[in-house]
Amino acid sequence: MSSTLLLILELFGIAVFASTGALVGVRKELDVFGVAVLALMTGLGGGVLRDLLIGSVPPNALEDWRYLVVPFVTALVVFMFHPVFGRLEREIMLLDALGLSLFCVTGAVTAGAAGLNVLSASALGMLTGVGGGMMRDVASGRVPVIFRGDLYATPAFAGALIASVVHAMDGSPWWYAVAGATCLVWRVLALLRGWSAPLPPGTLRG
Amino acid sequence: MSSTLLLILELFGIAVFASTGALVGVRKELDVFGVAVLALMTGLGGGVLRDLLIGSVPPNALEDWRYLVVPFVTALVVFMFHPVFGRLEREIMLLDALGLSLFCVTGAVTAGAAGLNVLSASALGMLTGVGGGMMRDVASGRVPVIFRGDLYATPAFAGALIASVVHAMDGSPWWYAVAGATCLVWRVLALLRGWSAPLPPGTLRG
Amino acid sequence: MSSTLLLILELFGIAVFASTGALVGVRKELDVFGVAVLALMTGLGGGVLRDLLIGSVPPNALEDWRYLVVPFVTALVVFMFHPVFGRLEREIMLLDALGLSLFCVTGAVTAGAAGLNVLSASALGMLTGVGGGMMRDVASGRVPVIFRGDLYATPAFAGALIASVVHAMDGSPWWYAVAGATCLVWRVLALLRGWSAPLPPGTLRG
Repeated sequence: MSSTLLLILELFGIAVFASTGALVGVRKELDVFGVAVLALMTGLGGGVLRDLLIGSVPPNALEDWRYLVVPFVTALVVFMFHPVFGRLEREIMLLDALGLSLFCVTGAVTAGAAGLNVLSASALGMLTGVGGGMMRDVASGRVPVIFRGDLYATPAFAGALIASVVHAMDGSPWWYAVAGATCLVWRVLALLRGWSAPLPPGTLRG
Repeated sequence: MSSTLLLILELFGIAVFASTGALVGVRKELDVFGVAVLALMTGLGGGVLRDLLIGSVPPNALEDWRYLVVPFVTALVVFMFHPVFGRLEREIMLLDALGLSLFCVTGAVTAGAAGLNVLSASALGMLTGVGGGMMRDVASGRVPVIFRGDLYATPAFAGALIASVVHAMDGSPWWYAVAGATCLVWRVLALLRGWSAPLPPGTLRG
Repeated sequence: MSSTLLLILELFGIAVFASTGALVGVRKELDVFGVAVLALMTGLGGGVLRDLLIGSVPPNALEDWRYLVVPFVTALVVFMFHPVFGRLEREIMLLDALGLSLFCVTGAVTAGAAGLNVLSASALGMLTGVGGGMMRDVASGRVPVIFRGDLYATPAFAGALIASVVHAMDGSPWWYAVAGATCLVWRVLALLRGWSAPLPPGTLRG
C-alpha cells in the first residue's frame, strides 16, 4: 500500500476516534478546550502509548503537525455542530470500527518492526487501537467502555495477532488486509447484533 | 536569565503546583501519604510527561533530588497547616498562574530544543503547564478542572505558542518574558473577572 | 540470588498483583476482557512505569512473553473461580505484601543501576511496588486505596530506601533481604493490626 494512502487512512481513523472523544466531552458539558483535549487524547493516545513503549520518541503524533491539526479541527467541528453528530452516533461507531481495524494492524506491525515478540506486538497492536478510548473514558470519569461487556478489544487483539504473525513470518502484505478485515467484520457484527464478551459467572446482565 | 534564577523559579512553581495537589488531597481526606503523592504528581507530572515524550530520560525530576524534596516538604507543610492554606486559596491560584506561565514557556523551549516543530512544541509547552493538574484531578476522581469552563489551558497554549515561535526564529530572549506575561495576564484576568471558555452550543451555564 | 529464582519470584509477585486486579474487575462486573486488562495493568503497571522513566524500553514486560502470559492466565482463573478467590481476600493481601516487598527492592536496584541518585531510586522502587495498584484503582473509577489511610506505600518506600542505600554503597546482597523483610514485616503488621497512616489534622476517622 502506498504510504500516502496509509497516511490518509491514519488521519481518517484519528479523526473518527477524535469525534467520539469530542462527543463524550460535549455530553459532559465540557468547555471548548476540554472537548479539544479529550478529542486529541482519544485520537492520538493509543499511538503515543505504543511509541513510548517501543522507545520511538518523539512519537509520530508530535513529529508531523497533521496529526495534531486533524483531531483539533475535528473537535471544533463536533463542538459547533454536536446535535448533528449526536444523531449520527451509530454511523460514527461503524466508522470507529474501521479506525480500530486499521490501528490494531499498523500498531502490531510497528511493534514487530521494533523487535518485539509476536505476543507483545499483538498486545501493543491492540493497545494502539483501544488506548485512546481508554484514556478518554478515564479522563472523563467513567469506567472504560471496553471493560463493560462491549466487544471492542477482542476483535482488535485478533486483528493484531494475525498481523503480528504475518509480520514475523514475512508474509505477503495482502494478509494485513485479512487481519484488518477480521477485526472489522467481528466488531461490526458485534455492534449490529449486540454481541458482548462474557461476564463473570453468577453476574446478571443489566 | 541565569540558570540559578531559573532553577529557583522552577522549584517555586513546583511548590505552588504541589500545594494545590496537597489541598485537594486534604479535602478528599486522604492520609499523609496520599497527600504527598498527589502533591508530587501535581508538581512534577507535567514536566515528567514532557520529558518522556521528547525522550529525555530519566526526566529532570529524577535527576536532581531537589525536584523531589520541594514538593514533598510542601505536601507535609500543607498537611499540617491545611486550614491556613485553605483560606489562602485565592492567593494560591494567583501564584499558580505564575507557575503556569513559567512552565508553558520553559516546556515549549525544551521541546523546541529537542527538535519538535512549532505546533508540537506549543502543545508540549501547554502540557508541561497543565499536565500535573490533570493528573491530580484524574487520580483524585474528579473531571479535570481545566476541562470545565475554567480558562486555564488556553492562556498556557498562547504563552507556549509565542515561546515556540520565538525559539524557532532564534528571537531575543526578552520575547520569552513576553510569552510568559501573555499567559500570566490572561490567566489572572480570567481569574479576577470570572472569564471562562465557551461551552457547547445549547448548554446552560450551571 | 540466582536469576532463575528471581524470575520465578517476580512472576509469582505479578500473578498475586494481577489477582487483586482481576478481583476488582469481577466486583465491578466487568466482562472477561476488562478483567484481563485490569489484571495485566495491576501486575505489570509498576514495572512498566519504572522502565519508561529510566528509559529502558521496550520494558521488561514486553521483552519476555512470560510477563504477559502469567497475569493473563491469572485473570482467567480468577474470572472463572471468583467466589473462591473472593473468600481468600485476606490471604491474597498477605501474598500481595510479599509481592510489594519484592518489587520495591528490585525496582530500587534497577533504578540505582540506571544511574539515579538514592532518593530518586527509592521513589522509583516504591512506584514499582505501588504503581500497578494505583492504575487499577484509577482505571476502575475509585480513589487509589494507597491514598486512603491504608499503610501500603510507606513500607514500600522504607524497603526501597534501604535497598537504594545498599546499592549505592555496594553493600552485601544480604542487605537486600533486610530491605525486603522491613517492607514485608511492616506491611503485614499494618494489615493484621489495622495500622494506618495519619489523616489531616481535624479529620474524623470514618
